[in-house]
Amino acid sequence: MHIHLQNPAGETLFAFSDSMWAAACDRAGAIAQGHQVTIGGTPADFATAMRTAEAVISDAGVLRSCMPFAAPHLKLVFVTNAGLDALAPYDWLPPGAALMNNRGTHAGKAGEFGIMSLLMLANRVPRMVTQQRQGVWKEMWGSVLGGRTVTVIGLGSLGGAVAQHARQFGMVVTGMRANPAPHPACTRVIGMDALDEVLPSTEFLVLACPLTPATRGLMDRRRVDLLPAGAGIVNIGRGALLDQDAVCDRLDASTLCGAVLDVFNPEPIPAGHRLWTTPDLIISPHTSADDPNTYNPVSIDIFFENLRAWQAGKPLPNRFDFERGY
Amino acid sequence: MHIHLQNPAGETLFAFSDSMWAAACDRAGAIAQGHQVTIGGTPADFATAMRTAEAVISDAGVLRSCMPFAAPHLKLVFVTNAGLDALAPYDWLPPGAALMNNRGTHAGKAGEFGIMSLLMLANRVPRMVTQQRQGVWKEMWGSVLGGRTVTVIGLGSLGGAVAQHARQFGMVVTGMRANPAPHPACTRVIGMDALDEVLPSTEFLVLACPLTPATRGLMDRRRVDLLPAGAGIVNIGRGALLDQDAVCDRLDASTLCGAVLDVFNPEPIPAGHRLWTTPDLIISPHTSADDPNTYNPVSIDIFFENLRAWQAGKPLPNRFDFERGY
Repeated sequence: MHIHLQNPAGETLFAFSDSMWAAACDRAGAIAQGHQVTIGGTPADFATAMRTAEAVISDAGVLRSCMPFAAPHLKLVFVTNAGLDALAPYDWLPPGAALMNNRGTHAGKAGEFGIMSLLMLANRVPRMVTQQRQGVWKEMWGSVLGGRTVTVIGLGSLGGAVAQHARQFGMVVTGMRANPAPHPACTRVIGMDALDEVLPSTEFLVLACPLTPATRGLMDRRRVDLLPAGAGIVNIGRGALLDQDAVCDRLDASTLCGAVLDVFNPEPIPAGHRLWTTPDLIISPHTSADDPNTYNPVSIDIFFENLRAWQAGKPLPNRFDFERGY
Repeated sequence: MHIHLQNPAGETLFAFSDSMWAAACDRAGAIAQGHQVTIGGTPADFATAMRTAEAVISDAGVLRSCMPFAAPHLKLVFVTNAGLDALAPYDWLPPGAALMNNRGTHAGKAGEFGIMSLLMLANRVPRMVTQQRQGVWKEMWGSVLGGRTVTVIGLGSLGGAVAQHARQFGMVVTGMRANPAPHPACTRVIGMDALDEVLPSTEFLVLACPLTPATRGLMDRRRVDLLPAGAGIVNIGRGALLDQDAVCDRLDASTLCGAVLDVFNPEPIPAGHRLWTTPDLIISPHTSADDPNTYNPVSIDIFFENLRAWQAGKPLPNRFDFERGY
């Protein structure tokens, strides 16, 4: 089949390359053989490739920038993002084509970012950094993670990876998701409808769910205020899951031990925004889940898993669910 | 025997209490039964107790503040610090008394602080925090720890715990110590005399050794400059192990990915010191190894292990080695 890979124009760090593709083919075996492969970097490259391509691999921003497009043979659209909210509504998708995200790609990096954030909160690093900014030396005692409670909202590849690490450090892990099926890394899994009951006993809260109509504004001011004194917040999902101002208000009042936020609303954070000077807050510029050394290679591996399923007539592991929005 | 525990005057967070002692006795079993136990908080309490005490448990600062003292029956001096450099020279020790440190107490907390620091360096948190201070949003990509190299100097309870975590995250761990016997968490262990050969290929350096005449100034400017571009430094040992100014110079020149330092020379860092404004540096106020919830309970547990050895006529596991200095 004709598989087209589209790079962002001028991108070097996260670009697909011939050698990266060749290495992934070696890992994938027979499924990767016999294809016609093109790699493009301009809208013209994309338009040309789409005349014959049956599969395309691209990130959401690039795909969006190439719309509208005609792709009469397109069967597989593999988007190298976990969250596809930037591509909604999905009426641009050619009839009969399957849309996939790259969930799984981010698990390794995001899981490490998540456990790092929990360690930083337990060690009071957000407060240390605030004192450092003020030029103040003041002892700031932390604790080990063992025995402390964390609530992880969303148990997909990101939340599942964070839960797994947290469990290894001896934490008591409460997982929350729409369907509260058990999860091997969680002490217990609870349905999202019980969120109000779980928050008051949550020492650390990790937001790791996708942004959908159901989760937008999930942690509104009322729920942020349900967290107990001294709690900590990590957000590696999407900025619009969380009422930022409510978090800033609690940090200003020193009623949280800190927050480590990787996603914001809007991004980038505008100059002069209160977030920049809010105490006990660590700002990560939406890079928690992405490791340039492994991101695209792992994405290609996952594409081949899906191609294997597609050729066998099986369900695509990464098929985007339009109803759930992830 | 008469066992005396001396608290720092006015200390609440790290104070011994009757209930803490009772809980430790329950854990320890028979060895903890039948003793006369006193807990003091003033120099007068200490002086009175020393008339009859056979064992004393105290931190180094408090012990120093009670000197000189007479303790005709004292056999066991258990100091609740890992590094006893503040008590040198040791001519204050009553003849025949054994001096112990509390090595082991810090392993859990320091190990977590160490792996947190490595995750922070790999995720570029020191740079993120610097950009945050400047109010600048700029993507800053990190990596997973797997496959990256870390050199841990000192494989006592602190360094050993960091090495163990690093190994679990898939890092390639080089341990260094005076006697290069193998260590289960290390890919290889190398003698300290080969330090100059190891540094140029070290991505992350963790200083976790005690301060002794042999280690003072170990990482001098010449050795700091042997670290490759993009390397990261963690110091959870002692400030005087490392030429701070050399580290600041490299951070100012952006030839390191960052540093996470918990110990400094001097402490506290004076107001206006260049460290406060050095980029890509995280300052932790010498609290990396101490968890108020577990510190003293674990120290008492370790004291009982030593008491058990002493009563059995065996070597004391925590006996301080005057020649090595730890």
